[in-house]
Order: sequence, then C-alpha cells, then structure tokens
Amino acid sequence: MESIIVALAAGCAALVFAAITAMRVLSADPGNERMRAIGDAIREGSGTFLRREYMVLAPFVIVVAVGLWALIDLSIAYLAGTICSATAGFIGMNVAVRANVRTAASAMRGLNPALRIAFSSGSVMGLTVVGIGLLGVTILYIIFQEITVVAGFGFGASSIALFARVGGGIFTKAADVGSDLVGKIEAGIPEDDPRNPGVIADNVGDNVGDVAGMGADLFESYVSSIIAAMALAFAGTAGAGLLWDADRVVLPLMLAGAGIVAAILGTFVVRSAEDASFEQLLWALRRGIFASAILLVIFALVIVLALDMEIVWFWAIVTGLVAGIIIGLSTEYYTSYSYKPTQQVAETSQTGAATVMISGIATGMISTVVPLIAVGVTIIVAYELAEFYGVALAGVGLLSTLGITLATDAYGPVADNAGGIAEQAQLAPEVRERTDALDALGNTTAATGKGFAIGSAALTSLALLAAFAIEAEIAAINLLDHKVIVGVLFGAMLPFLFSAFTMKAVGRAAMSIVEEVRRQFREIPGLMEAPSV
Amino acid sequence: MESIIVALAAGCAALVFAAITAMRVLSADPGNERMRAIGDAIREGSGTFLRREYMVLAPFVIVVAVGLWALIDLSIAYLAGTICSATAGFIGMNVAVRANVRTAASAMRGLNPALRIAFSSGSVMGLTVVGIGLLGVTILYIIFQEITVVAGFGFGASSIALFARVGGGIFTKAADVGSDLVGKIEAGIPEDDPRNPGVIADNVGDNVGDVAGMGADLFESYVSSIIAAMALAFAGTAGAGLLWDADRVVLPLMLAGAGIVAAILGTFVVRSAEDASFEQLLWALRRGIFASAILLVIFALVIVLALDMEIVWFWAIVTGLVAGIIIGLSTEYYTSYSYKPTQQVAETSQTGAATVMISGIATGMISTVVPLIAVGVTIIVAYELAEFYGVALAGVGLLSTLGITLATDAYGPVADNAGGIAEQAQLAPEVRERTDALDALGNTTAATGKGFAIGSAALTSLALLAAFAIEAEIAAINLLDHKVIVGVLFGAMLPFLFSAFTMKAVGRAAMSIVEEVRRQFREIPGLMEAPSV
Repeated sequence: MESIIVALAAGCAALVFAAITAMRVLSADPGNERMRAIGDAIREGSGTFLRREYMVLAPFVIVVAVGLWALIDLSIAYLAGTICSATAGFIGMNVAVRANVRTAASAMRGLNPALRIAFSSGSVMGLTVVGIGLLGVTILYIIFQEITVVAGFGFGASSIALFARVGGGIFTKAADVGSDLVGKIEAGIPEDDPRNPGVIADNVGDNVGDVAGMGADLFESYVSSIIAAMALAFAGTAGAGLLWDADRVVLPLMLAGAGIVAAILGTFVVRSAEDASFEQLLWALRRGIFASAILLVIFALVIVLALDMEIVWFWAIVTGLVAGIIIGLSTEYYTSYSYKPTQQVAETSQTGAATVMISGIATGMISTVVPLIAVGVTIIVAYELAEFYGVALAGVGLLSTLGITLATDAYGPVADNAGGIAEQAQLAPEVRERTDALDALGNTTAATGKGFAIGSAALTSLALLAAFAIEAEIAAINLLDHKVIVGVLFGAMLPFLFSAFTMKAVGRAAMSIVEEVRRQFREIPGLMEAPSV
Repeated sequence: MESIIVALAAGCAALVFAAITAMRVLSADPGNERMRAIGDAIREGSGTFLRREYMVLAPFVIVVAVGLWALIDLSIAYLAGTICSATAGFIGMNVAVRANVRTAASAMRGLNPALRIAFSSGSVMGLTVVGIGLLGVTILYIIFQEITVVAGFGFGASSIALFARVGGGIFTKAADVGSDLVGKIEAGIPEDDPRNPGVIADNVGDNVGDVAGMGADLFESYVSSIIAAMALAFAGTAGAGLLWDADRVVLPLMLAGAGIVAAILGTFVVRSAEDASFEQLLWALRRGIFASAILLVIFALVIVLALDMEIVWFWAIVTGLVAGIIIGLSTEYYTSYSYKPTQQVAETSQTGAATVMISGIATGMISTVVPLIAVGVTIIVAYELAEFYGVALAGVGLLSTLGITLATDAYGPVADNAGGIAEQAQLAPEVRERTDALDALGNTTAATGKGFAIGSAALTSLALLAAFAIEAEIAAINLLDHKVIVGVLFGAMLPFLFSAFTMKAVGRAAMSIVEEVRRQFREIPGLMEAPSV
C-alpha cells in the first residue's frame, strides 16, 4: 500500500504547490492600463479558441467513449483521461494568459523578476500535469484494480493530446506566418507592431499551442509511461488477481511520486542574482533540471534499496534519465543561438530564402541523430538490465521529473507573449530587450519538450507493444513476413502524410488570417495611421 | 541455353540500336557558331566534371575491390560492375552534350523535330544502360556460373550509382541555386542570361546529374533486379550445381531480353505530326511507354506459355508493370503543371517564400502515398502468387522496359540544356517557347525516373533480403527483439542524415559558385554591359 499512499500524497503535493505558485503569479503587478487591455485581448482569444476546440472534440470523445463502452468497457477511464487532460491544459493556460502581462511588467524592473514570473507560470503547468496525471492513474487503479482498464485513461489523454497539439499547433503557426506575411511583408511594419491585428492572434497561438497543446501532449506521454510499466508488470499474469504490493507495480508509482518531489524541490533552485547575465539565467534553468535529476537518482536508489527490489531496475531508471539529459542538451545545442548550428542557419539567411531553407531543413534533419542514438542505446541497455520492463522503467525515468522540464518549456510562450505585449504597449526598448532574451531562451527550452515527448514515446510504445505481445501470446513479429514489411513501409509513410495534412492546414489557416487582417486594415479607419513604435 | 542466347542477343541489339540512334542524333544540324560555342563550353565542363568524379571514385573502387578479393573473391565482378556503369554513363552523357545544341537548332524548325532529337538522345542513354547491364550480368554468369559472384557486379554498379547520383546531384542543384542567386537575385538579370557565368555550370549540372547520375542509378536498379530474381532462384540450392536451364533462372534473363525488344519497338511509336500541340507531344512519349508495356506483357505470356512455366509467374510480372505505370502516372499528376498540385504550389508562391515552401514540401510529402501503396499492394499480390520469387519478378517487370522509360527521363536534361542554349544564343522567342515546353515535359518525366528507381529498389531489396535469409538460414527477424527495433529506428534515421549531408553540400557548393560568378562579374571588364536579350 505504500506506493499508493506515496503516489496520492505526491499528486496532491503537486497540485497544492501549483496552486500556491499560481497565487504568487497572480499577485504580481499586471502593468499599466494599455498592457492590461492587450493582455485581456489575448486572454479572451485564448479562451475562445480552447472552448471551440473542446466543443469540436466533444462529439469525437463521446463517440469513442460509447464505442469503448460497447466493446471493452473502458469508457469511464477513457472519459476520465479526456477530462483530466483538458483540465490540466485549461488550468495551465489560464495562468499563462495572466502571467504574460505580469512578466512584461516585471521586465520593467529587470531580467530576473521577469524570469521568475514566467518560470513560475510554467511550473504551474508542469506540476498540474504531473499532479493530475499521477492522481488519475492511481485513483483509477484503486477503483478498478486492473491495469487494462487504467489503460483507457491513457487513451483518453491521447485523444486530447492529438487534437490539442495538432489543432493548437496549426493555429499558432498559421497566426505566426499570417501576421508576419501581412504585417512585415505587405504593410512593412515591424514584428508585434500594435497596428497589426494579427499580432494578438499570434500571441493567442502561443498559449493555445505551446502551453495548452504541449501540456496535453506531455500529459499523455507521462501517464502512458507509467501505465506501460504497470502493464508490463501485469503482462502474462492473467487471473493472478490483485498485485498491490508486487514490486513491479509499486516501483513506477513510487518513482512518479518521487519525481514530483524532486521537481518541486528543483524549482527552488531556479533563482538568480538581480543583475544576472543571460548565460547565468540559462544556467538557472539548467540547474533546476539537473538538481531534480540528481534528487531523483537518490530517491530511486533509496526506494529500490529500502524495498529490497532488484538493483538492475535502478540502473534502468538511470539510463532513461541520462537519455533525457542527452536529448535535452542536444536539443539545446541545435536550437540555441549560442552554438554553431543556429548561427550557421542565420548566416545562410543573408543569401535569401532558398539558402536558409536548405540549411535550416538540413540542420533539422541532422539534429535527429543524437536523440535517436540516445534512445537506441537506452533501449539496448535497459533491455539487457531488465528486459522490456527495464525499457518501460527508462521511459518513466525520462519523464519522472516532467514537473520541472515542462515548467521550463511552458515558460517559453509566456516570455514570447510578454515580448509581444512590451512591443504593443510601446514599453521602453530595454524592456523589449529583456523579453527578447527570455524569448530566445524559451525557444530553446520549448524545443526540448518535443524531444522529451518523442524520446519517451519511443520507449513507452515499445513497452506497450511488448505488453501486448505477451498478453496476446505473440512470439514474434517477423520482418521476413511480407505483410509485416508492407506494414513497416506503410507506417514509415504515415508521418509524411500527417505532416503534409497539418502543413496544408497551416497554409489555409494562414491565408484566412491574412484576409482578415487585410480587411481590418481596409475597413478600420485610421488603423495604419496610428503612431508606430 | 535459350535464355543465355536471348539475353546476349537482346543486349547486343540494344547497343546496336543505341549506336544507330547516336549517329542519327550527331548527323543533325548543330546550329550557328554561337550555339556551337556554348555547346562546346557545356561539353567541356561536363567532361571535366565526369573525369574528376571518376578520379575521386577510383581509389574508393580499388580499396573495395581489394577488400572483396581478400574476403570473398568478388573483385572481378565488382570491377566489371563499376566499369560497365561508368561506361554507360560516359556514353549517354557524351551523346547528351552533343544533342543539346542540335535540339536547340531543331527547335528553330518546330516543336516535333526538337522532341525527336532530345528523345533520341535519351534513347541512347536508356538502351546503353539496359544493353550493357544485361550483357554484363549474362557474361559474368557464363564465366563464373555462380550467382553469388555475379552479385558483385551489382555491388560495383551500386558504388558508381552512389557517387554519380549524389555527386552529380549536388553539383546540379548547387549550380542551379548558385547561378539563380547571383544572377536573378543579385544582378537582376533573367534566367539563363548569357552574361551570367553560372548558367554554363547549371547546364553542365543537368548533364552530369540528370543524365550520367540518373543513368548510373537506374543501371544499378536494373542489374540488381535481375540479380535478385536469379539469387532467389538459387537460394537454398547450395551445391546443386549449375542451373542453366532451371526455369527460375531462365525467366529473369529472358524477360530482360524481351523488355529490350519491347523498348526498341516502343521508341518507334514516339512520333507525332509536325504541328503537334504540347498535349499531343506528351501523349507521344506516353504512347511509347504504354506500347512497350503492352508488348512486354505479350512477350512475357508467350515465354511463360512456350516454356511451360508456372502461369502465376506471368501474373507477378504484370503486377510489377502495373505498379510501374501507377507510379509513373502518380508522379506525372504531382509534377506536371496540367494538374492541381503543381498549380496550387505555384499559386502559393504569390504570397512569398514562406507559403510556397510550406505548400511545396507538403505536396511533396503527400505524393509519397500513391507510390507506396502501389509498392505495398504489389508486394502482397506478388508474394501470394509466387512468394518472394514473385516479388523479385515484379521488380524485374517494373524495370524491364527501362530502355524506354529511361529514354523519356534522360530526354529532360537535353531539353533543359537546349533552352539554356537558346536563351544564351539569343534565338527567336518562339524557339525559347518551344524549348520551355519540352523542358516542362522533361521535368515531369525526369521525376518519373526517381519513382521507378525507388519503387524497384523496395521490391529488389526485399527479394535480396529474402535470398540472404534463405542462404543464411534465418527463419525470422523478430520486431519484438529489442535489437531489431533499434535497428529499424536507426535505419529510419539514416535517410534524414544522408539527406542533410547532401543538402549541406549543396549549400557549400552553391556558395562557391556564387563567389566565382561574383569574381567574374567583378574582374571581367564589360561582362555586365553585354547586350541583354
């Protein structure tokens, strides 16, 4: 029973800490009247988008729930998954759309206060996701006492993640491209110029895509990694009854709980002197992530030793953590302007769109190598340690400190929004400089979240595949079977198809935004004559 | 022995017909003095490039040959493969660099004479590739009487294909991008303007990349498809001795021979009225391909019935042919300006580089779906008909009429060159219009060749994998084995890595060309003052 108590307590602690942090953010100065007006517009737009998105989602969720109820009776867990994911996204975004003006206002005082507001807002998102996620899995497990039912919770989270990530992502890119096209290129006014009506849409996009969408995505990754490890613990034990105290079931839950504690403690390290340089601020975030990782290693060792579990499980967890850190550092190398890849792409932009596209796509493609090798080595080492259960544990390890890694991600769009507000409210140039610095840092940390989601997805889906094979008594999936090869080819084609669909959707949505902004330029008298910055 | 005689006779027929066609091309009017001067510059550049490329390749080939000699004694077949591939590329390109001026000169008389010269030049490439390819495989088989040794011929062809396709492709794209950047964008002069020194480099690139490079690529695909089918015929028969007359060995060779005859006959159908419209010219090419395909079906049926082989083999060949036609039509749909995809990409270019890139990449990604489904269905149907030997036969069927499909591909760069020469020699606008029409058609047919190469590669590599598994007595490659999954992940990453390397190489090479052209603009007095078109 200890594992259940630890998991419940940690989940509640995450939510309590998130609530306290949210109140601290909300108590900050929201800036002058103009900033508040801009913030209200972003908040209103984000709220409208999320409501519409959930309304589109509702019929889909209901149909799937009815189908699951009719077929395999997972509908309650499924619905719980959708509701929990949507709630986490809703809470996180609602804090983010209030933190943006407060970050801009704090940037008037200095870089560090602004970082603290933006990062705190990110922490609310991170801790809400892990808190609700772990509580959801644990409570459903207590009620149904069967992991196959709890798996429905993961399906629910997947449904929301699919729509929120893709829908939000399409809107945010379309708003970004559309407002730049019509503003920077057609009208010849600067980025985030208050005269460009597309700028609010761009800021709304950051919140619905990069806060709510990414939150839903990682919520799904997080709960699925725990469920995969538990499913493997149960696999092949059909009819073995309740496994409350089986080590293999206890460990993922306790590990997730320990991860929450490590993440909360890690957030306290994200502090910095008032006159901190940009590099020091970057290290402030990194310090938080590293501190959490080290704490988790210690906690994991204590758990494994105290409960007399197999020591190889501890090492499997460590491989996942190491893979996460490698993926994070590699992403930083490829996306931060402190390093060569980004600088080289910037250089090629001097010879026009063609060369920057070639070098940008090439750099993006090369950046897949290190994460893939990290995941590959992790799979091999974790499997050698404890077979597929080891791989599942590595997945849990990779995401266990999600509370803080997601915080550094969700901080990014808040900083981006703050920059937009500073520009639109025509704040002093040094304020904009500070928000730009925070934004650049945020672009890097936001990319890290994607690497985490994909890396953990590889480990988790392999663990789920193994659990399925054990349950269904499939001994081998033979690549020399021509149907399997065709399946692999077909699967390799799907990312291209789905990417194409989303890119085409971005194109269409961007054109709608261009047309709406053009209409406003044309029909609102005096809009273009307003004073520039 | 019939199969050997048919194969040798067909191979010789291909070379004789190629020689006659080459002489007909060379006897055409090479145009006025200025055109000949431009043609000489292109020929000189292409020759230099190919010589340099082969010089870089030589040490690599020697090292591999020594390695193969030391390890498994395939070095003679391997060297033969490299030499045959290089020879085919050399011959095809040497005709192409002479056909370009002659196509431009013929375009002064009309669209149809120009089409005939350009297509004849393509036929020389196509028939040289299949002639040398089939003769090489057959003669090595006669000498060594072991398919594992003949496989070395395929390795040799692969070596050349790798370097020629990638090296030529990098140069052609770099010259294209570089000369456009420095000419169209920096200097503000039109495409193919005679004042732009990069234009000759661009024309050279078409020859070394899209003629010699593509020829080497498809030479490798062609011989590998035949070798794969023969390897499967031998697989599992270790020590069974000579299989001259085994049906499974006879069929691929006879089929390749029949394909050559079908291709030669098909070229005669590529004729059209003197006042033909563009659509009619397109149909002239298509008619040649379809006629060859129908002839091959008839020949294949006759062979299978006359030699009393299994009728399912005939159907397996037909599935490959059908897959080829579907891939060809799908490629045409996605690359010809007669259809929606290309038109939509062109439309999005009106809103700038960002939107055209998004829609272009999205359209490219979607275009993978139909060819992949065609290949997938072919694998399943061909396997159901005759297991992996059926898949191998489908691969042979797909490429059996390569003599004519490669002709329509290799025609493209000749037409492109002719357009460049017409512009540089300041020929009348209607000449340029005609070469532009031929060029647009060539862009579509050139894309088709890539689809053929990739589609057949999927079938051939699956057949080779199966042959290897049978020889090595591997019963299953289990996707539930963690090492296999890691291998699949790693393999999925490699195309991204290699694409990135080539794209980066294009970027670097394009910058070198930009610098060289800038230097010439700066240092050659009066260059920019020369009269424009």
